[in-house]
Amino acid sequence: MWDATPPVIGEAALRENVHLDLDVVDCVADAFTALSAGKAIMPPILRLDIPEKHGEVDIKTAYVEGFDGFCVKMSTGFFENKKHGLPSLGGMMTVLDAETGHVRAVLLDNGYLTDIRTAAAGAVAARHLAPEGALRVGIVGTGLQARLQLQALSQVRDIAEVRVWGRDKSKAAAFTGDVPFDVQVIADADQLAEASNLIVTTTPSMTPLFKANAVNPGTHVTAMGSDAPGKNELDPLLFSKAGLVVCDSPEQCADCGELRSARKCGFDGPVVELGHVTAGRHPGRTQSDQITICDLTGCGVQDTAISDLAVKRLVKA
Amino acid sequence: MWDATPPVIGEAALRENVHLDLDVVDCVADAFTALSAGKAIMPPILRLDIPEKHGEVDIKTAYVEGFDGFCVKMSTGFFENKKHGLPSLGGMMTVLDAETGHVRAVLLDNGYLTDIRTAAAGAVAARHLAPEGALRVGIVGTGLQARLQLQALSQVRDIAEVRVWGRDKSKAAAFTGDVPFDVQVIADADQLAEASNLIVTTTPSMTPLFKANAVNPGTHVTAMGSDAPGKNELDPLLFSKAGLVVCDSPEQCADCGELRSARKCGFDGPVVELGHVTAGRHPGRTQSDQITICDLTGCGVQDTAISDLAVKRLVKA
Repeated sequence: MWDATPPVIGEAALRENVHLDLDVVDCVADAFTALSAGKAIMPPILRLDIPEKHGEVDIKTAYVEGFDGFCVKMSTGFFENKKHGLPSLGGMMTVLDAETGHVRAVLLDNGYLTDIRTAAAGAVAARHLAPEGALRVGIVGTGLQARLQLQALSQVRDIAEVRVWGRDKSKAAAFTGDVPFDVQVIADADQLAEASNLIVTTTPSMTPLFKANAVNPGTHVTAMGSDAPGKNELDPLLFSKAGLVVCDSPEQCADCGELRSARKCGFDGPVVELGHVTAGRHPGRTQSDQITICDLTGCGVQDTAISDLAVKRLVKA
Repeated sequence: MWDATPPVIGEAALRENVHLDLDVVDCVADAFTALSAGKAIMPPILRLDIPEKHGEVDIKTAYVEGFDGFCVKMSTGFFENKKHGLPSLGGMMTVLDAETGHVRAVLLDNGYLTDIRTAAAGAVAARHLAPEGALRVGIVGTGLQARLQLQALSQVRDIAEVRVWGRDKSKAAAFTGDVPFDVQVIADADQLAEASNLIVTTTPSMTPLFKANAVNPGTHVTAMGSDAPGKNELDPLLFSKAGLVVCDSPEQCADCGELRSARKCGFDGPVVELGHVTAGRHPGRTQSDQITICDLTGCGVQDTAISDLAVKRLVKA
């Protein structure tokens, strides 16, 4: 057993067998529940920055009780790749056996599984925090996560209207053609915020993209772009206006999420761990006029959950 | 290029093509030189402990200037495996392209490359720190590293006598049959230390194995067993008696090596980074009656060096 070569699964097979569907949303929700119930061991992220290459590697891992395996995931960002026609982001997952530590599978997903487990977390947040009724969705950013977050939302909620804002007008126009909704391109991010009751921010911005005052009572905001110190999509004042602040991992968010900027600007209010909401120990949104925030940095437990799902579908027992 | 499946190389091919020879010793020495010259970026180790499985995973990585790739290495220790006839230790290396971050190769070595790069560091230390002349070697421990450290030493120095000590007498006897030297099994670790002028400790001990006073002037001691807080092979008093203390990484050694216990017990003397010695910026041993210590915890730069050598030998450009 030990000497057997483990299955090595490529991106094409993973794309064919693992989609951004309710199974994925549910398995990511369960991962958050396990994390908050103390049924997971998730060490801090290992981060390697290579300034001379304009490159970075994040390594995340988490053991979750009851799973046959656990994931060690590396995510790469090499931002000169664009010049050579290659994607900037990549990565792979290794699944280790929870009993023996031996390699159960190598998932050469080039970041695909990370993309969908990240979008799925947005759906998990919306389930518990979005206002009632069909949503007026505002997407900030025009990249892959902008598309996937919208797709994930549509798994869990009815969508009435979609607006998009991006710095690059041509990319915003391309976005409208890529998604199965009528999308209005908005030139001003404040106007997008004012017109929306569910906002998802998906950019690597270093400065806030819209004013806290542009966000109406009753709006939910999911911020998934910030995953490193220095990144900051949300006006820190929005945290003080919010009736409920939820974090995928309060420790990670304080270190590299939106919570970091908010704390630096004096926000000292409580934050709730997303897993307490998914577990039903916290009710989520309780008032129709609450502003709610969900700060997502991406957790190793999500990787263990999605890789387990992929292995179950693709590897014969 | 991006979509191409990278080569996946198994343990058998690695064992066939990468041996514990002078090429490996030299490439590990060069890695230490690069680290100390500021030509490497080596983040702290990511450690995942799974107490309920009696398991642990260490993840190490380091970017080294001038290499085509860099390694992300996971090492596993699952100590219930013995019950099932499986080795406790395992692991694998992923080599990422230094320009693009994409996966250049997956080396499913089950810890083999870690074993030989670890032993090679012992040879690097002996080159610069062992006393002159043919050595009276004392090996503390009877496992795989006990064998490999002796083999590595024999690459760089003449060996006159070999003694071994182990808690388990039958394992010590097995050791004598496995190595190409006449080996004397010593029942008492203090007696082994007294009879030796080069000692290598290779155990996961939590308490010192021989007294500082048992070590004669002019002896070199390499301690490679301690790689986690709580492990401790050397009597902390030995640090105060030593004329020269060398660490593979002073930061790591202070965190999880012998230096940790020595500092806790009040040792406040200077330590020299091994790479300053390999680079010739520090002379190493300067007096025949010095006691010298080399504390090895294992560095990501060693993994990047050995994986680069393996890829060059096994992957067509």
